[in-house]
Amino acid sequence: MSVDLMPNRYRPGDAELSEREAELIARRDAVLGASYRLQYRKPVHFVRGEGMWLYDPDDRPYLDFYNNVPSLGHCHPEVNAAMAEQAARLNANTRYLEPRLVEYAERLTSTFPPELDRVVFTCTGSESNDLALRIARLASGGEGVIVTSYAYHGTSAAVAAVSPNLGAAVNLSPYARIARLPGPAGVSDADASGFFEAEVRAAIADLQRRGIGVAALLFDSIFSSDGVWIDPPGFIAGAVEAVREVGGLVISDEVQPGFGRTGAHMWGFERHGIVPDLVTLGKPMGNGFPIGGVVGRRSPMEKFGNTARYSNTFAGNTVGIAAADAVLTILQRDCIMESVLAASARLHAGLEQIASETPGIRAIRNAGLFFGVDIGLDSDSTHQRRGRALDVVNLMRDDGVLISTTSANEDTLKIRPPLVCQEEHVELFLRSLRKALVEASS
Amino acid sequence: MSVDLMPNRYRPGDAELSEREAELIARRDAVLGASYRLQYRKPVHFVRGEGMWLYDPDDRPYLDFYNNVPSLGHCHPEVNAAMAEQAARLNANTRYLEPRLVEYAERLTSTFPPELDRVVFTCTGSESNDLALRIARLASGGEGVIVTSYAYHGTSAAVAAVSPNLGAAVNLSPYARIARLPGPAGVSDADASGFFEAEVRAAIADLQRRGIGVAALLFDSIFSSDGVWIDPPGFIAGAVEAVREVGGLVISDEVQPGFGRTGAHMWGFERHGIVPDLVTLGKPMGNGFPIGGVVGRRSPMEKFGNTARYSNTFAGNTVGIAAADAVLTILQRDCIMESVLAASARLHAGLEQIASETPGIRAIRNAGLFFGVDIGLDSDSTHQRRGRALDVVNLMRDDGVLISTTSANEDTLKIRPPLVCQEEHVELFLRSLRKALVEASS
Repeated sequence: MSVDLMPNRYRPGDAELSEREAELIARRDAVLGASYRLQYRKPVHFVRGEGMWLYDPDDRPYLDFYNNVPSLGHCHPEVNAAMAEQAARLNANTRYLEPRLVEYAERLTSTFPPELDRVVFTCTGSESNDLALRIARLASGGEGVIVTSYAYHGTSAAVAAVSPNLGAAVNLSPYARIARLPGPAGVSDADASGFFEAEVRAAIADLQRRGIGVAALLFDSIFSSDGVWIDPPGFIAGAVEAVREVGGLVISDEVQPGFGRTGAHMWGFERHGIVPDLVTLGKPMGNGFPIGGVVGRRSPMEKFGNTARYSNTFAGNTVGIAAADAVLTILQRDCIMESVLAASARLHAGLEQIASETPGIRAIRNAGLFFGVDIGLDSDSTHQRRGRALDVVNLMRDDGVLISTTSANEDTLKIRPPLVCQEEHVELFLRSLRKALVEASS
Repeated sequence: MSVDLMPNRYRPGDAELSEREAELIARRDAVLGASYRLQYRKPVHFVRGEGMWLYDPDDRPYLDFYNNVPSLGHCHPEVNAAMAEQAARLNANTRYLEPRLVEYAERLTSTFPPELDRVVFTCTGSESNDLALRIARLASGGEGVIVTSYAYHGTSAAVAAVSPNLGAAVNLSPYARIARLPGPAGVSDADASGFFEAEVRAAIADLQRRGIGVAALLFDSIFSSDGVWIDPPGFIAGAVEAVREVGGLVISDEVQPGFGRTGAHMWGFERHGIVPDLVTLGKPMGNGFPIGGVVGRRSPMEKFGNTARYSNTFAGNTVGIAAADAVLTILQRDCIMESVLAASARLHAGLEQIASETPGIRAIRNAGLFFGVDIGLDSDSTHQRRGRALDVVNLMRDDGVLISTTSANEDTLKIRPPLVCQEEHVELFLRSLRKALVEASS
């Protein structure tokens, strides 16, 4: 059975549209075409954003529990001011001396374990993962990349080819190998570490047997597109060791978990007590300004830097650095991670309570403010579960709350509010979810 | 003989540095590492920019004849205001309805021949070329990509692998083939078209013979990193035809020539009287905001959009679109291309005059405000020519004028001022160049 790879989207006929919306969608389809999918059965249109809220043309507010780019909240005035001020003064590239570029690079790397003391900037998470693969292949001499079953690492050719989440229509690289995660395979926490290590060792053996060699184990440290599988802490340590034994690099994709989303740690890999060789950054780094990066150990980074001529016109430019610098300042100064822990604890407790009172929730997993909530009744088929999750998401959208779905079967609610989420927002969210679950079950 | 792939850069010991600069460079090397090269023997440090000018910490002005990203001039107040205003209101992604996204896409595609009526946005020129290759490979069923001898198309793994300009340290793809340009091979204008077509046909035959198939002919339409080879107009038409005969796509990389730089045309390929299948955009599109795109014919764009699930978090977001929209408005409203033609005519005449009076200029080539000026005395070895070009660039830098080098031998001055360059700037530039040529010859 084939799963629609973006089930939560608008399809013609799905919803009653205003004439203005219908005309705009027709024009949109004509010029942007099929790559541009609209979220929700009935598309949303926003005209302004502020903090946790987005507003439609009728000034109706939508509570944003989905967007993980504006992690400090929509239209953060301090980030915007930093960006505007720098744009008015100078927007220059990294081939000129620029103290703030160096200072930000030092501040950023100081949030990592001391072994990870180098950074190269990029513009997007895809560019970060693409660059990390180039570095890993050069440094290791191998070509093989091991990823998880529903991993998504981005849009470039090299990265899409190691993103099984994109489905059968996007060919996997002949050098990609898949390691199954213990959680979705139903393996107990006690056996999780051994299971994942065995999966990775099998992939290594196959890559070695074919002379492909091992460039990297590449993983999102909260395995978000696999369905948010974060436990037990440390379950990836054996696999990491196995990859290192054969000279492969360990790449932690922190595009989603990074910059404090997990609350307990600045970087998702810290939950697992490992230190990667390369770490990739993106989404929330500039609160919406396109900036990303690869942070890494000196040896592979220098081997690449001394060999390949790498430059990226926009990456690390003065305006992007100003935005990212403001984001890091606010994240640290305002103790955002503490507030993430508080909000996520409240959200987790509220979800548990709903699950105990209302049918339709099968499991709740989270690290900080990234939640995966499996939807479905015991009597549901997988198809029904997917439909029910989609119903919940769209009922909530109609109720003015934004989330979406994830996981192999797309029956897991993907909940990842901006990190400035407060208790009042959590309560609003829980009320809406409870209502939607009841309605979806009726 | 190996050519340094970035000759115009700082090397320790090259220049006397202030203590402050030396300390900053040491810190920069420690955290950013070898990938980050500084331009010029004595690095430059700017603290503000305005129009054609950049200013160092002592408020010394530098005339910018090099940066082609801020094509409307540094820190354009109108572009910055559009960006700041949008950032304060809403920074949202393309999965929500957004009239301005659609309107800008329509305005942008309307500057192309009518066959090119679709666009997908990206964040960088590298992402644009990477996406274009994905589309071409999917649409053609072939894998082979034909590029010119010193082509540079960007930094992603797939694109770096078809960028011979990166040198031996970056492996070419086994599916890349090189077609020599007539100009650098010394072929006359009369024979240019036939020569290039024969080169491309040979590449096609080899790709077919090996079962690789032909995905695309990918070229920068002014062949800038090959040394700015733009004549005779139309010389690529036969090659384009040859690629189409075997089902390959024609990709014009307009990251550098696009958005009016050639003055006579909005897009560089128009000079050659051809209509590509895909066109890639980047650098000046947002005057410094990271935005790019692929514009293309409906058939390959839709085949890709309907097959692969493509999304790019930052690309086409409301802030990037606001910046790009302002750029296009100003470009059209202020008749920038007319001013490009006027300035480039004056610059060309001035260069001819210098060449007639001062030894050291071997050839002048340009399309609008992208000039390649070959440097060297008749008695020079290629090594001496390269050294002389580097001397000229650095003497001009010391004189407060910014340019750099290009071409296979890096003995071609690369001159590409912001498009708002006026006659007064041209005169200042010419004066500085004349002085540097004399000094470099003495």
